[in-house]
Amino acid sequence: MLKTSTNGFASDVIDGERLLHRLRELAHIGATGDGGVTRLAYSDDDIRARSLVAEWLAEAGVKSRVDPAGNLIAHVVGRGDSRGALATGSHLDTVVRGGRFDGAYGVVASLEAMVHIVESKTPLWHDLVLVVFSNEEGANGTPGMVGSQVLCGFPVDVDQVDRAGVPLWKRIEDVGGDATALSEAVWAEDSIAAFVEAHIEQGPVLETERADIGVVTSITGRSNLDIRITGEQQHAGTTPMTDRCDALVIAARVIGEVSTLAREGVVRVATTGHITCSPNVWNVIPGLVNLTVDLRDEDDNRIAEATSRIHCLANELSTTTGASIDVRQGPQVPAVPMDHQLADCVSIAADQLALPSLHMPSGAGHDAQLIARIAPTTMIFVPSIGGVSHTPQEDSHDHHLVAGANVLLRSLRLMDQRVGGGDS
Amino acid sequence: MLKTSTNGFASDVIDGERLLHRLRELAHIGATGDGGVTRLAYSDDDIRARSLVAEWLAEAGVKSRVDPAGNLIAHVVGRGDSRGALATGSHLDTVVRGGRFDGAYGVVASLEAMVHIVESKTPLWHDLVLVVFSNEEGANGTPGMVGSQVLCGFPVDVDQVDRAGVPLWKRIEDVGGDATALSEAVWAEDSIAAFVEAHIEQGPVLETERADIGVVTSITGRSNLDIRITGEQQHAGTTPMTDRCDALVIAARVIGEVSTLAREGVVRVATTGHITCSPNVWNVIPGLVNLTVDLRDEDDNRIAEATSRIHCLANELSTTTGASIDVRQGPQVPAVPMDHQLADCVSIAADQLALPSLHMPSGAGHDAQLIARIAPTTMIFVPSIGGVSHTPQEDSHDHHLVAGANVLLRSLRLMDQRVGGGDS
Repeated sequence: MLKTSTNGFASDVIDGERLLHRLRELAHIGATGDGGVTRLAYSDDDIRARSLVAEWLAEAGVKSRVDPAGNLIAHVVGRGDSRGALATGSHLDTVVRGGRFDGAYGVVASLEAMVHIVESKTPLWHDLVLVVFSNEEGANGTPGMVGSQVLCGFPVDVDQVDRAGVPLWKRIEDVGGDATALSEAVWAEDSIAAFVEAHIEQGPVLETERADIGVVTSITGRSNLDIRITGEQQHAGTTPMTDRCDALVIAARVIGEVSTLAREGVVRVATTGHITCSPNVWNVIPGLVNLTVDLRDEDDNRIAEATSRIHCLANELSTTTGASIDVRQGPQVPAVPMDHQLADCVSIAADQLALPSLHMPSGAGHDAQLIARIAPTTMIFVPSIGGVSHTPQEDSHDHHLVAGANVLLRSLRLMDQRVGGGDS
Repeated sequence: MLKTSTNGFASDVIDGERLLHRLRELAHIGATGDGGVTRLAYSDDDIRARSLVAEWLAEAGVKSRVDPAGNLIAHVVGRGDSRGALATGSHLDTVVRGGRFDGAYGVVASLEAMVHIVESKTPLWHDLVLVVFSNEEGANGTPGMVGSQVLCGFPVDVDQVDRAGVPLWKRIEDVGGDATALSEAVWAEDSIAAFVEAHIEQGPVLETERADIGVVTSITGRSNLDIRITGEQQHAGTTPMTDRCDALVIAARVIGEVSTLAREGVVRVATTGHITCSPNVWNVIPGLVNLTVDLRDEDDNRIAEATSRIHCLANELSTTTGASIDVRQGPQVPAVPMDHQLADCVSIAADQLALPSLHMPSGAGHDAQLIARIAPTTMIFVPSIGGVSHTPQEDSHDHHLVAGANVLLRSLRLMDQRVGGGDS
């Protein structure tokens, strides 16, 4: 079944049909019936999907193991005496009613690249590591990116209990990990010379710009603000307009201004995604509104500027309306630049394959943003149809999925030549 | 205990201490513990409160009965040969965590006026009817004003099942009514020569204007609009601002414009009290928002004008944003003018008692708006501290409560002289 060419650079491509077939096989595990997948981390379906990937690796003669954090890891020894391995991978878990490709695409692309390299009889100089990160999406209210956090040596509270009442250490055990030995999972300094993650874009930029490949230059910084507006709950029929302190009318000003901030270019994107209104009854003037604002940019200073403007707006609205407006800093994730040299490899790989590419930030978070803290890192994006993700409608064209895996393979070859410890 | 003067007009006043005492006694029935009352229509507490009022009437020698609709009715025969009775009353049921005075005040004021008239030995020429309307507030999701609807001969669906799963006919039976005989409860044509309801204002106008008595000139018309905004649910991190169709940002425009409509004087008050947002997650651009808009005015044409402007706004926003915006007409209640002659009686009564009064609309709905369809009707308002109502914080000053009851008593005397069928 496997027929890969070993006779030259031009035919150094992955088995596209098998990649697509394997993506379809994975999509059956946790299928929602309408094209989507629900495959929560640590669930039986997650375990089945991971086992299937381990089987595919074994078919190619590659052994894999589960590390103490629950990551599935395969290691292929290189022919050189490199100081660190090249690593690639993504995750297999999904959100509730997510798509077929978010995570799974990067895993299968990495798998096909690794299998191709193994079977091509032209191994890399560097060792090659494939990693299936455990719990990227944050199943059952856990914080997510658990596996990559452990690999980076960041602390993880394994005693935290998820929405289903199960502690994280138990979840990690369920997938073959050992929460008492997490320190053994940490990637040693200099053990990774480069990490590259292939992923669907989850946005509309590549499709809009008619590019086949996104060369990711940075992973967006993110800052959440929790805004609490306390007005006065009053009777909607009896309270004159001049006597009102309507929390929802004030919230509407905030929502509009948050959007305007980004439209005017202060910050890349700004979104009010969550609102609650109390008492939320048609005949009562709202007394209390809570909003959650999400600010994202590749420059943390711009996020700080937008945050400062929102504080100013809150002060101004508080003064003019008499409402109490509390702007509280929520979770923050700093922007993470990708490694220039690795991004160049991706860019060159796309050029060599005659695939139009675009340098772009990643607007979503990925395990790569953590790995970037300990090793040179980049990402490869392929277009998402309509830009949609985290829904059963998530989709990508076959030729883009195959192209992305080939760019990954060729990028690994280029990195193998260029990054420290190789033969160059 | 009862000491009322019978020797002249100047001392024709109700027993203020007893009025306040009885209000306090009623406030114990269904007390929330923080000053409020939960006394849902048809509940055991509602039944207890009604029984207590019936006892107080009986103590004064006045018999009462429950009509087939569940209204508690007392009838005192006048000394004349009038064509119709003077009627007064309000309701005893409350919303969940409502106040002590909304409804109960009008009942006790009417009771004290009736008892005073009976005990003063100067009965009215007209018959005098006291009515405790059943289910004004709409307990457990029922439409409310059930008792007054039946009295007016308007249809009521007694098979409707409330939120607790109980049909209305059963609820009516629980308080001593008989849903199979509702037609017997209907007030015959010309049987009521005048109806007057005393009530707390439930708004801040009297307090702001430093008036003790509100002479109600009309009960506001009301129109609800249900607005459904369908944008595009997308990823908050990966979707550029220019590619968004954010339902919540569009909703914010609508909320702001609805408020502006009223502030600019197109309609008296306009409120967006209810909002739902989907999926309502911090990192997802809202795809769907539902709003409920409440428009109120004493002129139905002004409500129609405001409604038309909201339709225009929706069309404009739909064109500029690409969102689908559906504006659907919800429940409508036409504005109801109060009877001029009766309102004059209230105004004169306040003047005679040297109480500053103000002509004003009722911004809230009352049973009086239904009774006004079959009989000359007016209302008397007393100030609400801070304008608040439908909360445990609802409050009114003792002297205002007593003053309002005296204005009611004197208004009844004036109506007795002035309206058709009396001795004038």
